[in-house]
Amino acid sequence: MKSYLIGVDIGGTTVKLGLFTPKADLVEKWEITTRKHEGGKYILADIVKSIEDKLEEKNIDKSMVEGIGLGVPGPINNDGIVKNCVNLGWKVFNIEKNLSELIKLPVKAGNDANVAALGEMWKGGGEGYKNIIMITLGTGVGGGIIIDGMLLPGVNGSAGEIGHINVCKEETESCGCGKKGCLEQYASATGIVNIAKKLILDTTLESILIDKEKLSAKDIFDAAKLEDGLALKVINKFGEILGRALANIACILDPEVFVIGGGVSKAGELLLETVKQNYEIYAFHSVRKVEFKLAKLDNDAGIYGAAKLLF
Amino acid sequence: MKSYLIGVDIGGTTVKLGLFTPKADLVEKWEITTRKHEGGKYILADIVKSIEDKLEEKNIDKSMVEGIGLGVPGPINNDGIVKNCVNLGWKVFNIEKNLSELIKLPVKAGNDANVAALGEMWKGGGEGYKNIIMITLGTGVGGGIIIDGMLLPGVNGSAGEIGHINVCKEETESCGCGKKGCLEQYASATGIVNIAKKLILDTTLESILIDKEKLSAKDIFDAAKLEDGLALKVINKFGEILGRALANIACILDPEVFVIGGGVSKAGELLLETVKQNYEIYAFHSVRKVEFKLAKLDNDAGIYGAAKLLF
Repeated sequence: MKSYLIGVDIGGTTVKLGLFTPKADLVEKWEITTRKHEGGKYILADIVKSIEDKLEEKNIDKSMVEGIGLGVPGPINNDGIVKNCVNLGWKVFNIEKNLSELIKLPVKAGNDANVAALGEMWKGGGEGYKNIIMITLGTGVGGGIIIDGMLLPGVNGSAGEIGHINVCKEETESCGCGKKGCLEQYASATGIVNIAKKLILDTTLESILIDKEKLSAKDIFDAAKLEDGLALKVINKFGEILGRALANIACILDPEVFVIGGGVSKAGELLLETVKQNYEIYAFHSVRKVEFKLAKLDNDAGIYGAAKLLF
Repeated sequence: MKSYLIGVDIGGTTVKLGLFTPKADLVEKWEITTRKHEGGKYILADIVKSIEDKLEEKNIDKSMVEGIGLGVPGPINNDGIVKNCVNLGWKVFNIEKNLSELIKLPVKAGNDANVAALGEMWKGGGEGYKNIIMITLGTGVGGGIIIDGMLLPGVNGSAGEIGHINVCKEETESCGCGKKGCLEQYASATGIVNIAKKLILDTTLESILIDKEKLSAKDIFDAAKLEDGLALKVINKFGEILGRALANIACILDPEVFVIGGGVSKAGELLLETVKQNYEIYAFHSVRKVEFKLAKLDNDAGIYGAAKLLF
């Protein structure tokens, strides 16, 4: 393996880039704006220019770079073909081939949630494990599955779409995906706030949450840490739904560890403990002893994982 | 690869054995009784004797045999270590090593439900596919997962335990595993009968099922084929529960095909169609086009799959 790897994490607002050594040392990270107009046609060229500028600045010749790893916010198959990346304006094309021709380096790409899981395995909450389910609790709920150290992409690039597991068939409100009762409707940052709003309408409990003007998932976890009764009810409902979903996933995949990341995971040990307690209620006996860890790399998981794709 | 493979499927009542060519031609199959007393200590020796007798009868020298593949009715890890096979009386031991020392041939072992999935991929309903979820609807509900042509065992040998996914958190009756609301409680042969018994208590519909003395899953599917209203209600409920569970599994694994086997699958196209219709209601858009197939190998899936372990 050569001296450097480059990890690129393409997001809807910014593209994050990182220059790594093969030992997972981050030499430097930087970001550029994602230019989404005209069907996202400038994004790859912008990435090439930014990388070439950085290499020149660092006095690194391209021959010392192993290649470019790429995390893409949408489905991508094992051959590197992007299949409609709605929030970038991209249709169907081979991103590995296109970028490689532009930059004259090998390119390996994966879905961003999956790639983040790989990053957490390399240098984060999943370090030392090889069978990992990564759950990202953010605006939505994403997932990434690693089996024997390798990402599971799925035949349509949709493996690990755990945000769209149906967890409540009685739900009347729609998820962003058009279905009703998806895990994401309860376990994302927005989902937790929705649970709280419904409980507030229907409670006699006093709570510091009731008069909040703009309620956030963080407000709810903070209140729960202060033993606010309503907040604890919200957290317990969230934990019950997520814990049960993870118990079902464990029945299918029998992993070593769940790594929980994303903005909501900032709630830390309280979140981990609540989910774990509920998991144990629903878990099949032979998978009850799985580990629960918090993600460690925060927004850098994507660039770490993208670089790790090159191994 | 040598001229012959031997596949062995150890069940609680009989051990099934098959002599195969590497091209999946079954030369001969036979079975012996499973001697379970004294902690199952005679089972392996009985298998060795039966195989050696068969090879002698066929005039096949051991040097022409690639090895023995073994399906075991319980959890087994990737190193060939059986972890408490309750219905055979076995504790923890390395079955690959033990049997190999007795028979002086290479041995590769796997969990029986997983091995059956491999058999269906080799020569059954999953032929031509490499990413398969096999569901066995029998006395219980079992599963086997194949990714890129390889079995997924899970870190405790418990991957594919889909019978113990929680599908109903309000259930008050217990599953054999001790939990409440497992898929097996509704989608196994017994489960379907239980759905019917509950609906019978609570219906004003006339039905040929009501006066049956000993109701079976087959009676219910047969009645549904005759448009019996109550039977159709039972089948729809079963289909809704199983279809939703499979949609959730597809969100996680994104497979090419579901292969449905076991005694209940004898109901054929009606079962497949009911499950598929319900699957499509709950499936995430990018995994909606998965195939549904019936298993083909019946009770021979185990010996086929065990032999396939040797590849």
